Amino acid sequence: MRTAILEVLKKNSGQYISGEDISHTLKVSRTAVWKHIRALKEDGYAIEAHPRLGYALRQNTDRLLPAEIKAQLTSTVLGREIHYFSELDSTNNEAKKLATNGCQEGTIVVAEAQATGRGRLARGWFSPHGKGIWLSVVLRPPFSPMEAAKCTLMAAVAVNRAINEVTGAGCGIKWPNDILWNGRKVVGILTEMSAEMDAINHIVIGMGINVNIDQQEFPSEIAATATSLAVAAGRQVSRVKLLTAILAELERVYTVVKNSGFASVLDDWKTQSITLGQQVDVHGIDRTFTGVAVDIDADGALLIKTSQGLERVLAGDVSIRPASCI
Amino acid sequence: MRTAILEVLKKNSGQYISGEDISHTLKVSRTAVWKHIRALKEDGYAIEAHPRLGYALRQNTDRLLPAEIKAQLTSTVLGREIHYFSELDSTNNEAKKLATNGCQEGTIVVAEAQATGRGRLARGWFSPHGKGIWLSVVLRPPFSPMEAAKCTLMAAVAVNRAINEVTGAGCGIKWPNDILWNGRKVVGILTEMSAEMDAINHIVIGMGINVNIDQQEFPSEIAATATSLAVAAGRQVSRVKLLTAILAELERVYTVVKNSGFASVLDDWKTQSITLGQQVDVHGIDRTFTGVAVDIDADGALLIKTSQGLERVLAGDVSIRPASCI
Repeated sequence: MRTAILEVLKKNSGQYISGEDISHTLKVSRTAVWKHIRALKEDGYAIEAHPRLGYALRQNTDRLLPAEIKAQLTSTVLGREIHYFSELDSTNNEAKKLATNGCQEGTIVVAEAQATGRGRLARGWFSPHGKGIWLSVVLRPPFSPMEAAKCTLMAAVAVNRAINEVTGAGCGIKWPNDILWNGRKVVGILTEMSAEMDAINHIVIGMGINVNIDQQEFPSEIAATATSLAVAAGRQVSRVKLLTAILAELERVYTVVKNSGFASVLDDWKTQSITLGQQVDVHGIDRTFTGVAVDIDADGALLIKTSQGLERVLAGDVSIRPASCI
Repeated sequence: MRTAILEVLKKNSGQYISGEDISHTLKVSRTAVWKHIRALKEDGYAIEAHPRLGYALRQNTDRLLPAEIKAQLTSTVLGREIHYFSELDSTNNEAKKLATNGCQEGTIVVAEAQATGRGRLARGWFSPHGKGIWLSVVLRPPFSPMEAAKCTLMAAVAVNRAINEVTGAGCGIKWPNDILWNGRKVVGILTEMSAEMDAINHIVIGMGINVNIDQQEFPSEIAATATSLAVAAGRQVSRVKLLTAILAELERVYTVVKNSGFASVLDDWKTQSITLGQQVDVHGIDRTFTGVAVDIDADGALLIKTSQGLERVLAGDVSIRPASCI
C-alpha cells in the first residue's frame, strides 16, 4: 500500500492530490493514507501536506531504498534480491551470512552507514551515513578458486567504468582494485570467497564508494589520500543512479567472463590502469622493493621490472611514487 | 571430578576399588561418586559395580571423547581445542562456523555420526554412529588462495601415512585426495576455505574415515566401491589412536610446508599415489576424456597424457580403469 501511495504521488509529479482522492483511488481509509504518508516522510521523501489541497511529493528520498533501486534497475540478476539496512557493521559480513545460508546469486546488501567497514588487509573503511555506497554483491561463479584473484580485477573494471560514465570524473584503477581520482582513493573493493579446493561456493564483492563526502569530512588520517566523487565531479551525485549503473556494468562484464573468459577484462583493466608504466614501491608480506610496473599476467599478478629482473606480485600493497620523486 | 574418578579407576587397572575409598581419596560424598560413575557408564566406559568390592573399569569407552583424545595427543597445535558431538549435520559446517567466529588454529570438530556428511562435489558421505572418524580441522595457513589446492594434497599425504602406520593396511592416494584400499574408498577428504583474494582467512580440512564398518553395513549404492580400515586390516582399529596419529602427522607435514614450501609434500604425494601410471577417465565440468596419468605439477594439477597431447586437470573427477579393461 505504501508503494502504491508513493506511485500515486510520483505520477502526480509535484502537484497536490487530496487525501480523499488517494483514499478513494486505492480503497483505503483516510487514516491509513495519513499513516503511510508519515512513514514515507520517515523514509526521506519530502512530502508537503496542505490542509485543503492534500499531499505533494516535493523531493524524492536520497536513501538507497530497495523500491528506489528497483525502479532504476537495468540488470536482471544483480540486485534482484536487495537487503537494505540503515546501519551494519559491514555489508560484506552480512552478505557472507546470506550467501552461506544459500541466498541466490545477485543478492545485494546495502547500508546507509557501516560501523566497522572493512578494506583489504584488515584495514578499516570510513563509511559515514548516507554519503556513500556501501555495497556487497553475492556471486556464485563457475570458476576455479585459482581464478578468484581475477574476479577482483573484473569488479574494478566494472565499477571504474560505471563511475566514469555517470560522473565523467576520469578515475583510474590502482592495482589491484582501488579506484583513484587525482591520486586519491574514491573506491575500495574487498572481495572475499568461500570455496572448496576445486570449486567456488560463493564470492562476495564488497565496495566502498565515496560519493557525496565533502573533502573536510574525511578523518585526518586519510584526508590527504582520500576524496569523493562529488569532489571529483564538482557536484552531488545520485547514489541510486550510480549504484544501478554499477550493477548493470558488473553484470555485463561478468557475463562476458563467464562466456569468453577473462582475456577482455584483463585488457580493459590495462587500459583503465594508472599503475602500469609507473615507478612503484611494493610492500609484500616478507619483502619490500621498488621497480616499474610493466604489465599484469594471465593470473592478474602485477609484473614489476626491477634492477634484479622481473618480479611477480600477487599479494600485498603497491604504492605509486609521485612523479616529483622519481 | 568425573575425570578424577576415571583416573582413579584407570590407575587401578581393572581391579575393584570401593566407593568409600574413592570418596575418601577425592573428598567427595558417596552419592556424588555414584552419580559420576553412572555418567561415565553413559559415556561408554564399561564399569562393573559389586555391592561389596566397589567399582572396576572393565573396558575403556570406544567414543572419541575429548578426554580420551587428549590423553593420547602428541600434536601441540592440532587438537588443542576439541569440539565433540554425538551427532552433527556435518563436522565441516560446524568447523566453518567456529572458524568464522575466530576459533584458534588447530581447533578440531569430531562427531560420532553425521546426518548429512558431505564429500567433494556436493556428494554425501555415509557416516554411521561410532564406526568412523568424522573429523574437521581448522587451519589458518599463511598461504595465498592460489596455493589452497595443495593443502588438500598435504592432507591426503598425512592421513594416508598415519593410516598405514597404525593399521598396516597398505592404502594409497587416488587424485586428488581419496584414500583407497584394494580399489575401494576408505577415506574422503573435503577441504573448504574462506579467503580474501590475496590471503586465506581459514581452511577447514574435513575427513571421513571408514574405520570399523563391516562390509555388509555399507548402503547398496556404495557397497561395491567403499570399504573400511577394519576390513582392510582384518581387525577392529582404535579410533582414538588413529585420530591422534593423523593429527600428529598432519601437524608435522603442515610445519614442513610452512617452513620449506610444498615441494616435499608433492614428492610424498607421488610416492603414495595409486593414480600415477594408470589409465584414467577424466570427468571434468565440461568435458570427458581418457589418458594416462603421468604426473602432478607444482600447482597440484594432474597431468594426463592423451592422444592429443598433455592435458592438465585441476578440478573434476578421475576414475582409474580396472587393469582388465585396458
